[in-house]
Amino acid sequence: MLSEFDLIHHYFTRAPAADDRIALGIGDDCALLQPKPGTRLAISTDMLVEGRHFLAGADAEALGHKSLAVNLSDLAAMGASPIGFTLALSLPAADPDWLAGFSKGLLALADLHGCSLIGGDTTRGPRNICITVFGELPAGAGLRRDAAVAGDDVWVSGALGDARLALAVSLGEIPAGEIDAGLLALATRRLDRPTPQVALGIALRGIAHAAIDLSDGFAGDLQHVLERSGCGATIDVDALPCGPALTAQPNARRHAWTLAGGDDYELCFTAPSDLRAAVIAAGLAAGADVTRVGSIDAASGLRLQDRDGNPLAIAPVSFDHFLST
Amino acid sequence: MLSEFDLIHHYFTRAPAADDRIALGIGDDCALLQPKPGTRLAISTDMLVEGRHFLAGADAEALGHKSLAVNLSDLAAMGASPIGFTLALSLPAADPDWLAGFSKGLLALADLHGCSLIGGDTTRGPRNICITVFGELPAGAGLRRDAAVAGDDVWVSGALGDARLALAVSLGEIPAGEIDAGLLALATRRLDRPTPQVALGIALRGIAHAAIDLSDGFAGDLQHVLERSGCGATIDVDALPCGPALTAQPNARRHAWTLAGGDDYELCFTAPSDLRAAVIAAGLAAGADVTRVGSIDAASGLRLQDRDGNPLAIAPVSFDHFLST
Repeated sequence: MLSEFDLIHHYFTRAPAADDRIALGIGDDCALLQPKPGTRLAISTDMLVEGRHFLAGADAEALGHKSLAVNLSDLAAMGASPIGFTLALSLPAADPDWLAGFSKGLLALADLHGCSLIGGDTTRGPRNICITVFGELPAGAGLRRDAAVAGDDVWVSGALGDARLALAVSLGEIPAGEIDAGLLALATRRLDRPTPQVALGIALRGIAHAAIDLSDGFAGDLQHVLERSGCGATIDVDALPCGPALTAQPNARRHAWTLAGGDDYELCFTAPSDLRAAVIAAGLAAGADVTRVGSIDAASGLRLQDRDGNPLAIAPVSFDHFLST
Repeated sequence: MLSEFDLIHHYFTRAPAADDRIALGIGDDCALLQPKPGTRLAISTDMLVEGRHFLAGADAEALGHKSLAVNLSDLAAMGASPIGFTLALSLPAADPDWLAGFSKGLLALADLHGCSLIGGDTTRGPRNICITVFGELPAGAGLRRDAAVAGDDVWVSGALGDARLALAVSLGEIPAGEIDAGLLALATRRLDRPTPQVALGIALRGIAHAAIDLSDGFAGDLQHVLERSGCGATIDVDALPCGPALTAQPNARRHAWTLAGGDDYELCFTAPSDLRAAVIAAGLAAGADVTRVGSIDAASGLRLQDRDGNPLAIAPVSFDHFLST
C-alpha cells in the first residue's frame, strides 16, 4: 500500500508555480504567500462530506472539480482573483484510481484559474474534503454582503435550478424518463461540475455594491445580503433566469427551484441602477449572462411577485445542514 | 434543534478583533486579510478525525484546544506570528454541550495567541475538525525545512515522549497503575492540551536555520529536514529531553518514545554552532527549554548513538495515517 507521503507526492505534487505571490508552496510546515502591495488576501473554506454533499461512489474526477469550484465561487462573490488553495483530505483508503480521478479534476480546474495547491493534510477516515482557498483583490474593492443600498438593482448570473432538477432525478424524486435525455445531461453537468463565476466577480469590481454566491438557494442567500445590509428587496420571480432543463417543468417547480434549489454557484449581486450598461458590459467581458431580477428597498423583508406584480406567497427555505436530515 | 446559522452565531461569533491585519472577519463569502507591508503570510492546515486523532467521547474543551494547538505549532515551526484561522466542522449532531466545550477550549487558546476566528463552515457528518491557520513573518525570516547546513547544531524544545506514554495508558498498552498518578496526569495533559511553541519560533527568527514541529515523532520529522536540506545528522539519543513521566520508564521505551512517540508539538531546529548563546537566550525569552541533541552532517542519513558514542540500531518509524491501521 502507498504511504501517506507517497500519496501526496504522486498525485498532488507538481512543479512549483511560477507565481511571485507564492513564496513557498507545498512541503514545509507552512506555505508562504506575499500578496502584492496594496492588495488584500481573500480567504474562504468549504468542507464536503460523503453522504451529504456527494454520494458514495460519486465520480472522483467530477468531485475533484466540484470541491475546488465551490470554493472558487466564494472568491468570485468577493471579486477576488485566485492565488492558491490548501487541501485537507480524509479517505477510507488510499485508492489509486480514486486519487488519480480526484486529483485530475481538481488540478484541471486549478490550472484553469491559475490557482496553485500550496499545502495540505491527508488522513484516514470517513471521506471528507476540506479546501481553503486564497485570492487577492485591491484594498477596498471587495464585494461584501453588507454593501447593498436601497435603489440598487438585483442581478443574477447564469441560470438557476437545473442542478436541483438533476439532484431530484438522482434522488428519485422525479423519474429520469420525465426529462429529455439531453437536457438532463446538461442539468447533471450543472450539478456535478459547476462553473465558478470568477471572471465575472473580478469584472464587477467598482460596479457592483454587494454580492453573494448562490450555494443554498437564491432566496435564502439573498436574505443574508438583506440582513447584513439592513434593507429589503422586491423580486420578480418570473424574471429569475431558469436553466434549460427546468424551463420545461411546471410553473410551481420552476418557481420553487429557481428560488431555493441550491447548488447553483451563480452570483447574486446588487448595483446602482445607473450602472446597468456597465453590468451588462462586465457580463459580456466575462462571458457570463447577467439578468436583472428586482431591486433593493429601504424597507426590510423579501417581497416576491410574479411578472404582473402580484405578490407570491412562497416561503422558500434555504438549505441548512443541521435542520435537513 | 438549533439551525446551522444559530450554531455559528451562538458559539463562535464574537466581537470583531481590534486587529488592523483583519480587514473583514467571519460572516461574508470570504475573510479579508491585509498583512503588513514587508511581511509574508504563513498558512498551514490540519484535519482531525474522530477515531484516528481523537477518541469518540474525548473531552470537547480539550479537543477544541488541541485542534488549534496543532495548527499553531506549524506556525511556530515557521517562526510566524499568529493572525487568525478558519474552522470547518463536520458534526453528527448540533449538541450544545459539545459545542460549548469545544468553542471554549478553542477560543481560549485563540485569545492567548491573538489569533481570531475569521471564517468557517459547518456541516452534518462524521466528526471532523479542519483548521487552516494564518500567521505573518518578515520576508526572508521563515524557518524552512530545507535550510539546515552541515555543522549546525540540532536542538529540541521542551521534552518528548510523555504524550506517547499517556496514549499507551489510554490504549491499555500499559496498565495505568504502573505509572505514578501525578506523573500520568502531567503526561495526559501533554497529550490532550499540547502547548504550541509560538513564542520560541518567533524568538528564533534570524538565529535558527531550519525548523520543523514534532507531530509524528522526532526521528521521522527530522528526516524531513534532512531530505529537504540534502544533509544528514548525528543524534545523541540519550540527550533527547524526556518528559517527567517517561523518564521513570525502562531505557528501551524511553529511547523509542523520545525518538518516535509522536504528538509532542515541540520544535526541532538547527542553528549555527557559534549561536549557542543566542539560542539559549531565545529559549529564556520565550519561556521554553532548549536542548542541544546533535549536529548536522554533510553526509546523508540519520545516525543515532548513545551518550558514549555507540551506534544504536533503532529503526524508528514515523506515524503514517495510511500505513498504520
